[in-house]
Amino acid sequence: MDLLNITLNGIQPVEKQVMSEAQNRIDNLTKPIGSLGTLEEIAIKVAGISGKLYNTINKKNIIIMCADNGVVEEGVSTCPQEVTAVVTNNFTKDITGVCTLARFNGADITIVDIGVKEDFENPKIINKKIRYGTANMIKGPAMKRDEAIRAIETGIEMVDSLVKEGYNLFGTGEMGIGNTSTSAAVLSVLSGLDSSLVVGKGSGLTEKLYLNKIQVVQKSIYINSPDKNDIIDVLSKVGGLDIAGLCGCYLGAAKNRVPIVIDGFIASVAALCAYRLNPLVRDYMFPSHLSEELGATYVMKELDFEPMLNLKMRLGEGSGCPLAFSIIEASLYAINNMATLEEAKIMKDAFAYTGKE
Amino acid sequence: MDLLNITLNGIQPVEKQVMSEAQNRIDNLTKPIGSLGTLEEIAIKVAGISGKLYNTINKKNIIIMCADNGVVEEGVSTCPQEVTAVVTNNFTKDITGVCTLARFNGADITIVDIGVKEDFENPKIINKKIRYGTANMIKGPAMKRDEAIRAIETGIEMVDSLVKEGYNLFGTGEMGIGNTSTSAAVLSVLSGLDSSLVVGKGSGLTEKLYLNKIQVVQKSIYINSPDKNDIIDVLSKVGGLDIAGLCGCYLGAAKNRVPIVIDGFIASVAALCAYRLNPLVRDYMFPSHLSEELGATYVMKELDFEPMLNLKMRLGEGSGCPLAFSIIEASLYAINNMATLEEAKIMKDAFAYTGKE
Repeated sequence: MDLLNITLNGIQPVEKQVMSEAQNRIDNLTKPIGSLGTLEEIAIKVAGISGKLYNTINKKNIIIMCADNGVVEEGVSTCPQEVTAVVTNNFTKDITGVCTLARFNGADITIVDIGVKEDFENPKIINKKIRYGTANMIKGPAMKRDEAIRAIETGIEMVDSLVKEGYNLFGTGEMGIGNTSTSAAVLSVLSGLDSSLVVGKGSGLTEKLYLNKIQVVQKSIYINSPDKNDIIDVLSKVGGLDIAGLCGCYLGAAKNRVPIVIDGFIASVAALCAYRLNPLVRDYMFPSHLSEELGATYVMKELDFEPMLNLKMRLGEGSGCPLAFSIIEASLYAINNMATLEEAKIMKDAFAYTGKE
Repeated sequence: MDLLNITLNGIQPVEKQVMSEAQNRIDNLTKPIGSLGTLEEIAIKVAGISGKLYNTINKKNIIIMCADNGVVEEGVSTCPQEVTAVVTNNFTKDITGVCTLARFNGADITIVDIGVKEDFENPKIINKKIRYGTANMIKGPAMKRDEAIRAIETGIEMVDSLVKEGYNLFGTGEMGIGNTSTSAAVLSVLSGLDSSLVVGKGSGLTEKLYLNKIQVVQKSIYINSPDKNDIIDVLSKVGGLDIAGLCGCYLGAAKNRVPIVIDGFIASVAALCAYRLNPLVRDYMFPSHLSEELGATYVMKELDFEPMLNLKMRLGEGSGCPLAFSIIEASLYAINNMATLEEAKIMKDAFAYTGKE
């Protein structure tokens, strides 16, 4: 419990003073005020996080938490549970969606086995296995309280060690058959929304399987009656090791004062858990793409975020992170390198009172 | 008139057969069907454009059409007209928004003086000046019919010559004080929407100046009564040399079978003009970012496009293009390099019936 509490207590607010200096500088660049929209907000936010006016990204890493979920016994997915292990292995072969997109962007990926049912003999998969998948949450808690804490702490440790290696931009990914069900359960508890509103249809789930999934989520909450004010209780009873691990990544990023990208439904729910544990974490997070899932929309609303990409992606894996990274990096590059109005020989007033004309 | 007609007649449909082969290949990649969303659509569309299953972008170019507008006499902008020339010059100094973003993305820019009021002694600005700014459209046609045609043909020629240099992805940018007024006028005629619905507020235009801008746009249409079924008539009477030039770029891209990105309100209106001249052009276009402008939303609706970026940008210059380029390139890279389900040792059925789970 020590690392978690130390981390929660160690998270500092972003530096408002530097943000306001960054805002001033940006307002003096050769463009109408505010006209670079979200790109300006990103640069200002990163300045607040790092405490520096000019920022560059050195190394980028997408942490992919892989874990199995006992609840798949209830037929919540048409995908066999073995796919978790197969895809986890495939991440190391550089052939999946997130791998190819990360390679294109020049980002690295870190594959963490935080609870896959199988053992791997693959040096590229980091063994942080807490247990061989969770228990079936419809019959009782998915895991012990202590296991949830260790999963969160694993996420913190991963970021701690990657920051030491020089990474200063993080992304969040996951792999785990059944994890939209666990995410929906956690979100239903945290938001008070009925399961039917937060369980996604997927693209091919039949109506019957969809209704079953809703009922399974509802029942898991009913059986375990998690305390919505106790995030660890919720995560351990109806969550997953991947969600808890990602929750820890956000906490670790905030503690280390580095930006971290939220990608997809599961990572969004993990972000909400981190935010509820310590609201300061929000200011270190960047949303990537608009999700089609109603549940993800709820999280974005509570966190007051508007995603930067509109790509109808629903692959998971953290596959939107490399695309968000490229927007963040472009933003920092533009803001660092544009001239001020003075340098560009444009009167300040020329742009000051107009939008785009 | 020859080049325009030859181009309009020379535009071919995209290759549906190759698109369906691309769709088949993508459905066999190691991911749930459709889960890469817009990234899949982009790769399929590019396959249809090039006629090849595997595509890569060699060189990227953003064509920036710069021109002045006589209507600024009516106080439609708080920005002095001279800013057109100053910013056009600044594009060559690599210090504006689009310059820095393009440099980050590895894209080149082509700066075309298609009608700036000043002369430049700058070898980096391509002199294609058709006239020294348009006439004040509130007092009569902005330009002659022949000048509008020459402006469109200039756009076609620019793409023709850049394609010969090996560029195979284009972006559209513009600079011209007053060009949101001319764009609004063209759009009002083409859409039948009242000026008040298509004139943007900008960020700082006072209510009085905003109402004036609406009236100026209305009056320019009333005075000139352009024929909405004759795009050249509309462009010459209430358009601008930049809009006409960009319209030509889209036609040129379609003729040369290369993808082209629509960026911002002015470029959107130019895209609509090109589409109305030949609807086949649509399949060669890619929208970049969601605009806050209602008028831009109308164009996206008529063209049935959903922009890929949600960044609240309103700088113009084509500044969203480099960001869209990076998404398009990431899409092609991922689709070219992901493994098939067979290669990844995943049963086809595992992903086939499920969305993301």
